[in-house]
Amino acid sequence: MAPLRMPVLRGSPCLALGAPQPGLRARPGRGAAVVRAAKTADGPSVAIAGVTGAVGQEFLRVLKERDFPYSKLKPLASARSAGKHVQFDGQDIVVEELTADSFKDVDIALFSAGGSITKKFAQAAIDSNCMIVDNSSAFRMTDGVPLIIPEVNGEDMAGYKVGKGGIIANPNCSTIIALMAVTPLHKAAGVERMVISTYQAASGAGQAAMDELVLQMREFLDGKEVTKEIFPLQYAFNLFSHNSPITDTGYNEEEMKMVKETHKIWKDPDVKVTATCIRVPVMRAHAESINLQLKNPLTESEARAALNSSPGVSIIDDRENNRFPTPLDATSRDDVYVGRVRRDISRGDDKGLDLFVCGDQIKKGAALNAVQIAELLL
Amino acid sequence: MAPLRMPVLRGSPCLALGAPQPGLRARPGRGAAVVRAAKTADGPSVAIAGVTGAVGQEFLRVLKERDFPYSKLKPLASARSAGKHVQFDGQDIVVEELTADSFKDVDIALFSAGGSITKKFAQAAIDSNCMIVDNSSAFRMTDGVPLIIPEVNGEDMAGYKVGKGGIIANPNCSTIIALMAVTPLHKAAGVERMVISTYQAASGAGQAAMDELVLQMREFLDGKEVTKEIFPLQYAFNLFSHNSPITDTGYNEEEMKMVKETHKIWKDPDVKVTATCIRVPVMRAHAESINLQLKNPLTESEARAALNSSPGVSIIDDRENNRFPTPLDATSRDDVYVGRVRRDISRGDDKGLDLFVCGDQIKKGAALNAVQIAELLL
Ligand SMILES: NC(=O)c1ccc[n+]([C@@H]2O[C@H](COP(=O)([O-])OP(=O)(O)OC[C@H]3O[C@@H](n4cnc5c(N)ncnc54)[C@H](OP(=O)(O)O)[C@@H]3O)[C@@H](O)[C@H]2O)c1
Ligand SMILES: NC(=O)c1ccc[n+]([C@@H]2O[C@H](COP(=O)([O-])OP(=O)(O)OC[C@H]3O[C@@H](n4cnc5c(N)ncnc54)[C@H](OP(=O)(O)O)[C@@H]3O)[C@@H](O)[C@H]2O)c1
Repeated sequence: MAPLRMPVLRGSPCLALGAPQPGLRARPGRGAAVVRAAKTADGPSVAIAGVTGAVGQEFLRVLKERDFPYSKLKPLASARSAGKHVQFDGQDIVVEELTADSFKDVDIALFSAGGSITKKFAQAAIDSNCMIVDNSSAFRMTDGVPLIIPEVNGEDMAGYKVGKGGIIANPNCSTIIALMAVTPLHKAAGVERMVISTYQAASGAGQAAMDELVLQMREFLDGKEVTKEIFPLQYAFNLFSHNSPITDTGYNEEEMKMVKETHKIWKDPDVKVTATCIRVPVMRAHAESINLQLKNPLTESEARAALNSSPGVSIIDDRENNRFPTPLDATSRDDVYVGRVRRDISRGDDKGLDLFVCGDQIKKGAALNAVQIAELLL
Repeated sequence: MAPLRMPVLRGSPCLALGAPQPGLRARPGRGAAVVRAAKTADGPSVAIAGVTGAVGQEFLRVLKERDFPYSKLKPLASARSAGKHVQFDGQDIVVEELTADSFKDVDIALFSAGGSITKKFAQAAIDSNCMIVDNSSAFRMTDGVPLIIPEVNGEDMAGYKVGKGGIIANPNCSTIIALMAVTPLHKAAGVERMVISTYQAASGAGQAAMDELVLQMREFLDGKEVTKEIFPLQYAFNLFSHNSPITDTGYNEEEMKMVKETHKIWKDPDVKVTATCIRVPVMRAHAESINLQLKNPLTESEARAALNSSPGVSIIDDRENNRFPTPLDATSRDDVYVGRVRRDISRGDDKGLDLFVCGDQIKKGAALNAVQIAELLL
C-alpha cells in the first residue's frame, strides 16, 4: 500500500452539499414529533462502509437514536451484498458495492469493513474531501491520526471538521471500555499501572461469530458435534484466549492494542499496562476486571464520586444485594457500567483499586463512539 | 455450634476394620485384570457425605479411577435421597440418610454436603475415630486444621493417619487451581503479589447450577423467559460477579478465601493477593488469569521449566497456533493446565509474569484433591 497522505487536513468544504452549520450539533428534532427528524438538506452526506456487518448494523441504529443530521445515507458493503436493502429512518436504501468511487459525494464515511478495506479505500475517500471515522486498527497507531474517545480526549481532534478529507481512528473496543471507566480515576489520582483481564463477547468478532455461538449451543444441547468455522475451538460452554495472533512479546495483538492505545490516548507512554484477553460465550458486551495502581491515594468514595460525575459512565455497585455490572446490563446501552469498586486488599495504602466494568463493544466500543466522533466533526 | 474438639488426633486405630497397611498406597490392582481391584478386606471403610451432589458423584468416579483401596463404601446424603441407589465399582449401593450415627463403622469420610452439614456432623465422626476430608469452607481457616493440596503442602498433614479421628480441609477450588500453577513459580522465585481474575464454571455452584444453565440456554434459544432459581441473574450468555456475600472489605467471600487460604497453605501471611471472582457460562472447569510479581527474576523459560517438572501441572502454550488452556481441555482431567506464560510487559524487569490457568474444579478443585488427601491418610 502506498503511504497514506495523512493526516494533513486538506481539500475545501463540500460546497455542493453545503457546509454543515455549527448549530447542527444540537441534534435538531430530538424529542420533536417530526418523523425522520435528522434528515436535513444541510446535513452531511454519510456513508457506512461495512453496513451489513455487526458494527454496520449498529451504525444505523445509533445514527437514528441520536438523530444524527444527514442529507443522504449511503450504505456500502462488498459485491456480495450489493443490491441488498437496508431500512433506515423510514427509508428503504439499496446497498452499493464499496469502490474507490463511492466517496465522491460523501462528507463522512463510517468505516467498519476491516483494516484491509480501510487501507485500500482511505486515500480515495480523503481525496474526495471525505472525513473517515475508522473502526479498524489500520491507522490507530499512525502518527498524527487522532485516536479518539470523545469523553476522554475529544480535544485531540480539534480542527477536524466535515468538508475536508481526513481520518480519525476509533480505538479498540476493549480499550474504549477500559478507558471510559479508568480515565476519571486517572484524572483524580494518576494511574501508574493497570492489570486487565477481559471477558470478551462473541460479537467482538462480528456477526458470523455470534451466529456460530448460537449454532454451537443448539448443536451442543442436541448432543451433536459442534460446527467450528469462525474459531478453531469449541465456543459453546467454553472460553479461550483471544484469537488474535501472538506477537513477539508473548502478548496477543488485542492485548498489545490495549497497551499501546492507552499510551496514545492518554499521551503517556509511561503508564504501565498488562492485559490478558479472553473470549467468553457471551453474545454482546465485553467485561473487564481491572486492577489499578495509583500515583496518589484515592478512597473508594472518592473513586465513586469521580466515576459518578463522568459522562458515559454508570455505576452498578450494590454490595448488599450482590448486584454489579453484567454484559446483559450493558447490552445495547450507551454507557459503560462500573462496579466492584474496592480498595485493593493486596496493598497497605489507598493507592490501589479493583473494578469490574461492562460495556457494549458494538455500541460504545464501536458504532456509538464513532458516531460521537462524527458529531464532533459537525 | 459447640466448639469442635480439634485438631487433636485422638482415638485408637479402627482395629475392627483392620488398620490399613502402609503398602496399600501403592494402589493394589491398578493395571491388573481383576474386577473391583480396589475392594480389599483390609482397606478402610469410606463414607461419602453428599454423594448425590456434583462433588459426591465425582468422588465415586475418582475413587474408582485411582483404585482407592476400600473395604466398604457408604453413600450418604439427605433424607430426600435416602433409598436411592448409586452404582460403584460394579456394586449397587443404597444411599443412607446422613445422621450422627453414620460414622460408627467408617474410617474415612469424604464430606461434600456444605459447610453447615460438616459443622453439624464433624464431631460425631471424629468421636467415631473417623478421618474427615472436608470440601466445605467450615474448618479451612480453623487453627490446627491442615488445609492441604498434596502437591503443595502434603507435609502439613504429617501424622494424620486413618484409624484416628480428625479433620483435614480441602481448600477452595479456585485456590487449589491457582496454587497448583503458581507454587512452582513461588518456589523458584518467590511470589510477592498476585492479581487474579477468575472465570468460574457453573459446576462450582453444584449440580443444580449446571442444570439451570442448560435449562436457561434452551429457554433462551427458544425465545422464552429464562428460569432463575439458583442465581438471581440470567446466566445463559451472561456472566456475573461471584454470588458469595460481599465482606466488609468489599471483596466477596470467594475472593477472600483465595487471599486467606493462600496465606495458610504457603505459611506466608505477607504474600499479597487480590482477586476478582466472576462466574461465566461454562459448565465445568474454572479458568484464572494470574499476574505475578516476583521477589527474584524468573525468565519465561525458567518458569516453563519449573511448571514442567511439577506433578499435576500440564503446559498448553503454543503461541504459533494460538493454542492455550481452555475449560474443555481441563474438563474431567486431573491436571491443572497452564499457558500464556509471558514476561509482564508492564514491568521493566524479569520479576513479573502473566499466566492463564484452567482446572476442573470438581475434580482437582474438589474430589480428586480430597481423594489424594485420603491416600496420604493410608
Ligand atoms: N464487532 C465489534 O465489536 C467491533 C468493535 C470495534 C471494531 N470493530 C471493527 O469493525 C470492523 C467490522 O467488524 P464487524 O464486527 O462489523 O464485522 P462483520 O460483522 O464481519 O462485518 C464486516 C463488514 O465488512 C464488509 N466487508 C467485508 N469485505 C468487504 C469488501 N471487500 N468490501 C466492502 N465491504 C466488505 C462486510 O460486507 P459483506 O456483508 O458484503 O461481506 C460487512 O459489512 C472490523 O475492522 C472490526 O475489527 C468491530
Ligand atoms: N462444586 C464444586 O466445584 C465444589 C468445589 C469445591 C468444594 N465444593 C463444596 O462441596 C460441597 C458440595 O458441593 P456440590 O457442588 O457437590 O453441591 P451439590 O451438587 O448441591 O450437592 C450437595 C450435596 O449435599 C447433600 N446434602 C444437602 N443437604 C444435606 C443434609 N441436610 N444432609 C445430608 N446431605 C445433604 C445433597 O444431598 P441431597 O441430594 O439429598 O440433597 C448433595 O449430595 C459444598 O460445600 C461446596 O462448597 C464444591
